[in-house]
Amino acid sequence: MQRQDLSQSYATIRQLTEKLCRPLALEDYLPQPIQDVSPPKWHLAHTTWFFETFILKKYLCAYQDYNPQFNYLFNSYYQSMGTPFNRPQRGDLSRPTVAEVYQYRAAVDDQILNLLKTAAVKTNPDLKALLILGLHHEQQHQELLITDIKYILAQNPVMPAYSPRGSKISGREKQQVIPLNFRTIEGGLKEIGWPRDSGFCFDNEMPRHQVHLAPFRLANRPVTNGEYLAFIRDGGYSDFRHWLSDGWDWVQANAIQAPLYWQEREGEWFERTLSGDGPVDLHRPVAHVSYYEAEAYASWAGKRLPTEQEWESAAVVASGVENVAGSLLEDREFHPAAPINATANGFYQLTGDVWEWTNSAYLPYPGYRHSADALGEYNGKFMSGQMVLRGGSCATPQNHIRLTYRNFFHPEKRWQFTGIRLADNL
Amino acid sequence: MQRQDLSQSYATIRQLTEKLCRPLALEDYLPQPIQDVSPPKWHLAHTTWFFETFILKKYLCAYQDYNPQFNYLFNSYYQSMGTPFNRPQRGDLSRPTVAEVYQYRAAVDDQILNLLKTAAVKTNPDLKALLILGLHHEQQHQELLITDIKYILAQNPVMPAYSPRGSKISGREKQQVIPLNFRTIEGGLKEIGWPRDSGFCFDNEMPRHQVHLAPFRLANRPVTNGEYLAFIRDGGYSDFRHWLSDGWDWVQANAIQAPLYWQEREGEWFERTLSGDGPVDLHRPVAHVSYYEAEAYASWAGKRLPTEQEWESAAVVASGVENVAGSLLEDREFHPAAPINATANGFYQLTGDVWEWTNSAYLPYPGYRHSADALGEYNGKFMSGQMVLRGGSCATPQNHIRLTYRNFFHPEKRWQFTGIRLADNL
Amino acid sequence: MQRQDLSQSYATIRQLTEKLCRPLALEDYLPQPIQDVSPPKWHLAHTTWFFETFILKKYLCAYQDYNPQFNYLFNSYYQSMGTPFNRPQRGDLSRPTVAEVYQYRAAVDDQILNLLKTAAVKTNPDLKALLILGLHHEQQHQELLITDIKYILAQNPVMPAYSPRGSKISGREKQQVIPLNFRTIEGGLKEIGWPRDSGFCFDNEMPRHQVHLAPFRLANRPVTNGEYLAFIRDGGYSDFRHWLSDGWDWVQANAIQAPLYWQEREGEWFERTLSGDGPVDLHRPVAHVSYYEAEAYASWAGKRLPTEQEWESAAVVASGVENVAGSLLEDREFHPAAPINATANGFYQLTGDVWEWTNSAYLPYPGYRHSADALGEYNGKFMSGQMVLRGGSCATPQNHIRLTYRNFFHPEKRWQFTGIRLADNL
Amino acid sequence: MQRQDLSQSYATIRQLTEKLCRPLALEDYLPQPIQDVSPPKWHLAHTTWFFETFILKKYLCAYQDYNPQFNYLFNSYYQSMGTPFNRPQRGDLSRPTVAEVYQYRAAVDDQILNLLKTAAVKTNPDLKALLILGLHHEQQHQELLITDIKYILAQNPVMPAYSPRGSKISGREKQQVIPLNFRTIEGGLKEIGWPRDSGFCFDNEMPRHQVHLAPFRLANRPVTNGEYLAFIRDGGYSDFRHWLSDGWDWVQANAIQAPLYWQEREGEWFERTLSGDGPVDLHRPVAHVSYYEAEAYASWAGKRLPTEQEWESAAVVASGVENVAGSLLEDREFHPAAPINATANGFYQLTGDVWEWTNSAYLPYPGYRHSADALGEYNGKFMSGQMVLRGGSCATPQNHIRLTYRNFFHPEKRWQFTGIRLADNL
Repeated sequence: MQRQDLSQSYATIRQLTEKLCRPLALEDYLPQPIQDVSPPKWHLAHTTWFFETFILKKYLCAYQDYNPQFNYLFNSYYQSMGTPFNRPQRGDLSRPTVAEVYQYRAAVDDQILNLLKTAAVKTNPDLKALLILGLHHEQQHQELLITDIKYILAQNPVMPAYSPRGSKISGREKQQVIPLNFRTIEGGLKEIGWPRDSGFCFDNEMPRHQVHLAPFRLANRPVTNGEYLAFIRDGGYSDFRHWLSDGWDWVQANAIQAPLYWQEREGEWFERTLSGDGPVDLHRPVAHVSYYEAEAYASWAGKRLPTEQEWESAAVVASGVENVAGSLLEDREFHPAAPINATANGFYQLTGDVWEWTNSAYLPYPGYRHSADALGEYNGKFMSGQMVLRGGSCATPQNHIRLTYRNFFHPEKRWQFTGIRLADNL
Repeated sequence: MQRQDLSQSYATIRQLTEKLCRPLALEDYLPQPIQDVSPPKWHLAHTTWFFETFILKKYLCAYQDYNPQFNYLFNSYYQSMGTPFNRPQRGDLSRPTVAEVYQYRAAVDDQILNLLKTAAVKTNPDLKALLILGLHHEQQHQELLITDIKYILAQNPVMPAYSPRGSKISGREKQQVIPLNFRTIEGGLKEIGWPRDSGFCFDNEMPRHQVHLAPFRLANRPVTNGEYLAFIRDGGYSDFRHWLSDGWDWVQANAIQAPLYWQEREGEWFERTLSGDGPVDLHRPVAHVSYYEAEAYASWAGKRLPTEQEWESAAVVASGVENVAGSLLEDREFHPAAPINATANGFYQLTGDVWEWTNSAYLPYPGYRHSADALGEYNGKFMSGQMVLRGGSCATPQNHIRLTYRNFFHPEKRWQFTGIRLADNL
Repeated sequence: MQRQDLSQSYATIRQLTEKLCRPLALEDYLPQPIQDVSPPKWHLAHTTWFFETFILKKYLCAYQDYNPQFNYLFNSYYQSMGTPFNRPQRGDLSRPTVAEVYQYRAAVDDQILNLLKTAAVKTNPDLKALLILGLHHEQQHQELLITDIKYILAQNPVMPAYSPRGSKISGREKQQVIPLNFRTIEGGLKEIGWPRDSGFCFDNEMPRHQVHLAPFRLANRPVTNGEYLAFIRDGGYSDFRHWLSDGWDWVQANAIQAPLYWQEREGEWFERTLSGDGPVDLHRPVAHVSYYEAEAYASWAGKRLPTEQEWESAAVVASGVENVAGSLLEDREFHPAAPINATANGFYQLTGDVWEWTNSAYLPYPGYRHSADALGEYNGKFMSGQMVLRGGSCATPQNHIRLTYRNFFHPEKRWQFTGIRLADNL
Repeated sequence: MQRQDLSQSYATIRQLTEKLCRPLALEDYLPQPIQDVSPPKWHLAHTTWFFETFILKKYLCAYQDYNPQFNYLFNSYYQSMGTPFNRPQRGDLSRPTVAEVYQYRAAVDDQILNLLKTAAVKTNPDLKALLILGLHHEQQHQELLITDIKYILAQNPVMPAYSPRGSKISGREKQQVIPLNFRTIEGGLKEIGWPRDSGFCFDNEMPRHQVHLAPFRLANRPVTNGEYLAFIRDGGYSDFRHWLSDGWDWVQANAIQAPLYWQEREGEWFERTLSGDGPVDLHRPVAHVSYYEAEAYASWAGKRLPTEQEWESAAVVASGVENVAGSLLEDREFHPAAPINATANGFYQLTGDVWEWTNSAYLPYPGYRHSADALGEYNGKFMSGQMVLRGGSCATPQNHIRLTYRNFFHPEKRWQFTGIRLADNL
């Protein structure tokens, strides 16, 4: 990526973040209804803090903090940068105002773009790497913006809409579901992880290494709402045999009976989306299920979830010969869609639409070492208690996702667009 | 009060509520940092809901709800009106927007004022009584608005100010503390409570009844910050002997070391006020202490808190011959002040500046019966677990407070302007 | 009380404690199923610690602690004696063993009785007062022993019995309920509290003082199970209108539907007693209700609870002319009973059977001052957040109860034998 | 294993359980100070319930439950057998008494041994398999008995001892630490898991399968107390850089500063053991550390934890040529010991002394399927949120441990004898 391109990318990606906020009322920038969900205002400020902290402060001589308190308020979890502001209280902050945060963005953008005009980038690969990391960080928060806005609006009894229904969502009749089938993948030694020196990836995707896999079978597409509804109607949520022990406790303690955002009214199921409330569309991929639900569904279906190594090895091969992409952020569907004009012969939606829970815990790859500086906190310290998800969703930017991308969440989390792709033994 | 006056009062009081919000940024209307504190937006809407629910729906034929969801969202605790929206989630609601809430206020105000133009009020004492109740309800929320805004701004590390320092606050040199003394009050049979048919009071101030009091002594003024600081410096917070058992547990569990909003920095004490952060002014009445702290201070000082009957009987007599008022809302101090030009001979600040904790539990007066309709929920159902406070504060509207007024809070609450007046046995 | 008598009382009362434990299996001495309930072993040790700490250590020269760790383990709440062992963990202690605790009792008893043989008591009124206080303290724990044993056994699915059914309990046919009526009590100035120099009382019963009461009416007997069942069957637990706000929250949060120990099976109500499980006897006084339930029942019945001053003034007068006592500990019923051979003309069961919730908060009498030493912690520091109960129960020793006796519990507590006597305005 | 042998094994193993309880006072059988720790009485009953439920009820015609309530009380987590008794309340049960539980054991033992005398076992491989499973289950609870007894006694301020110090523990001078070194293990394809048809193993050790490992290095012995103390003294517990994010939160929230049972007194470290309290012995393996602590220690040391596949492949090879065993239950040390007469050339203590945390999440092996009956709940449903430990401890029976054995605990658990063996990349 050249300097020119980098400036262009910077401007485009930063602008997209703001563009995603355009449908919001000013009031929508503030609430934090649950700890996982951050106020949109916070996302706008935190991503800016990232550029200021890791680039401007390092590469600009005599840089003056834009506002010293922002170091504390908008640090997410970097202990190296000082104790961060208490996460559950992000929604308690009325100040700085939204306008002040936009001013903060503009000021940092100016300085970054000025910096990019100097020769620094060309001669300084570290700076360039940090900028690219910052942009991917921004893109991660674009996805979080969408899912957090969804939660903020959907939990409000007034239920405001964020966007009109997307084109793929406009008519249920246009949706069709391709038959579910399982494609066999050969076993043997496989290369897993991102190849060194082939562009950006997060440190957790490396080092590339060999694993041995037994042959297995992987579903051609994600589980649909219709299929998931059969699990519900079969009493899936009240039969302990399908559930992990922790999952069963979670179901009981929280009286879980359906995916997040689903609601039964007079025998019919409705779902809250970014375009408002409507009947559950049976053809679309099921979303907003926890790992526990994904695992229980697979058990009920007599199948299992793939490991992340199985998923990646199948996806890498398939992507060489077919189009495995579903809807991504740029499609502006803001909701998982069914594939159009699909045939039964390929893998569908390996990227996009819904993140797919794997049966792999989020742990370091063999030989993984995180960096010693503050950015060493980016990924490595979360390698405990979380499960890996693969493939991106309808809220993931297109040039952000990779087949080696390892997303991770605690097994009970549901506010992301998280779905299910089944696997099976041979 | 005539119809004309009532319209005038309605307009004035409703406008004051909005005027109190004028210094706010739009973002300040939304947060709910603790359950006790409601978002200013909620106060604006709830007081409007009160008039719509208890007057417009009752007295306007074929009245159409302004927005049926508001019945649910802005009902505080009236079970008779349906299950209220979950209180701790008031801060999670971005919608309706602030502008929409102001429109709601305007629409209800229009209808109320139109209603007042008809003959209804003259011929309908119930309607008139409801209107006056609604206005006193609005005034209660004016006080809460001020204390909630204080909490919202003060807990923000950015610490924005609501107002410039008041005139009484402008110079520490002008403040002087009158010497503390205790005035003896005769014992005997006393009349307590509001006399029937002498204007508005809340139902909990009635019926007027006789109590027998032993003679006692009551302090001429509230305890000052300077006096309270002596308690802190004497180790008051770490000596269990001064504390009620529940109070001691509360101090330990919450690591309490000073009144709310106080902070020690390098050996000096600072206090957050609605005008920002500054050194604790030793001459002002101490505020933002819990009942436990008030009780412990009194124990440390070798004194006690008055009962509400002692307080009322002393105040009623004194108010007949002296000016016992301190700063109230209309003084726009927004902070307790020391009396100016005071001599040692009177009672000072019996109303205004700080609410004064009494050693009386909030319980019904002999013969008290709450009304059978929804408004029976206004006061009576809270007669459990709370302590009575008397006298109003710097955030109480002048024509809202009475010497028989019974305010009540749980013993650990501190976010109101709550202070201490000592009593003693003869 | 002479020295001889004191020794006799000491021996008798201390032995009764142990006698009450005789039906227990050794295992029953240990559990603490909820924080309120202490293991019987703990009661045996703590009452002994009381005599060792406040008498032996003070009056025996060069007294050696029986076991220094017991100072910590068996201190209940006397901060003056050092930080007490954490209350919720009393049930975690297997050691000292039960046998070791009985040895501790025997050793302290020996020393106390030896001390009583010396002249000390005659010449030392403080020692005598402490001994009498220690014996009343022991009697308080006799009541707690019974109620705690009841809880320990009743919460066990195996449901073992403590004692055979008492004679009054042996046949339902013998029970008859006298008709409920309300007796009018004159208003005016009344003397409340224990008269100085007329024998032992707790400090919270003093000083005796005057109150002015309006005339009122008081029920001749407690509310029965049958009457309470009518409240249940009328939907009393699901109608918010009867409940204090805190009570309603408590009912919802804990899914309360009946008194503690009641259980509905196939449409009939059963109750766990110290003699095992059986049908609810409609003629007996209802027990194990919280203050919230008592208050809600009274509201439903169109009546109210008496204040403690009303209760005491009525009881003192009645006791001069009639037998107002019900079953006490010495009757060994271990369960509230209906009065036998009662007529409708008197007050029944003012003492005994069930403690009666009053509508008075537990607060100091005018002029109350607790002592400055450790025993000042006995009562005074609990004067916050609790309600007063009067009259004793079937688990209260006969020579322990007085008509001026002020018992107190938090409003949600139910594991004591707590019941309801109604009052009404004239 | 022949029928004769099986009877012999049954009798021996069941007797050992009771023998392990012999040092207990009757009171020690009852407490449950934390949820993880079950009362010894419960262990005695639950293991008996296992044989009654899964064997007697299945193989004895017209079998009458010993006590129907025991099905509920002593079911641990088998939802297939009905809702189990609430785990945190196991310590609230005084009944059945300890003597009754021993009677229960004797009665079930009689019937099992009678059953074994019949021809059933010879002709019924399922019964034989269930019996062997039951015995391994009993052995798991023998280990838990020891660790739970340790917790019960150690948390008591009286601090009673369970056993005299073991021979290896008798003199600190006899202890010597072999130098730490790292042995290189070749990479490549490895067989992991228990070979089919080669005797008993738990289902989670199967199926045997291939993995590919990069070459790595593994420490010759566990980390010692002395080495761990260096971590503490270097500020390890207060430097976030060593910790996983969840671990850091756990350290902060629980104020963790040392392994469980360690206490600093006047600058020296002491440790509570089953033989009482004493100075930390620097030569012994560190025990009672959580996964978080193990991981943080490894990070501080510039090393890492092994995966379970690395551990197993190294252990299997080593055990073919050297004695890799440390102290096990039969050694009756009841505390990790340092190896005696060790040289630097071998692997030490791969089994025994301390369980070794691996960096592997507890997940199913490829192709794992749990059985469809109740025993399918034995292992599979716990494959979530836990980390694998390998090698057994000083509380593990010798014929119970295997090199393929997968133990698992949540990452914060410390009450087992859990320690650390370091690994490193080549």
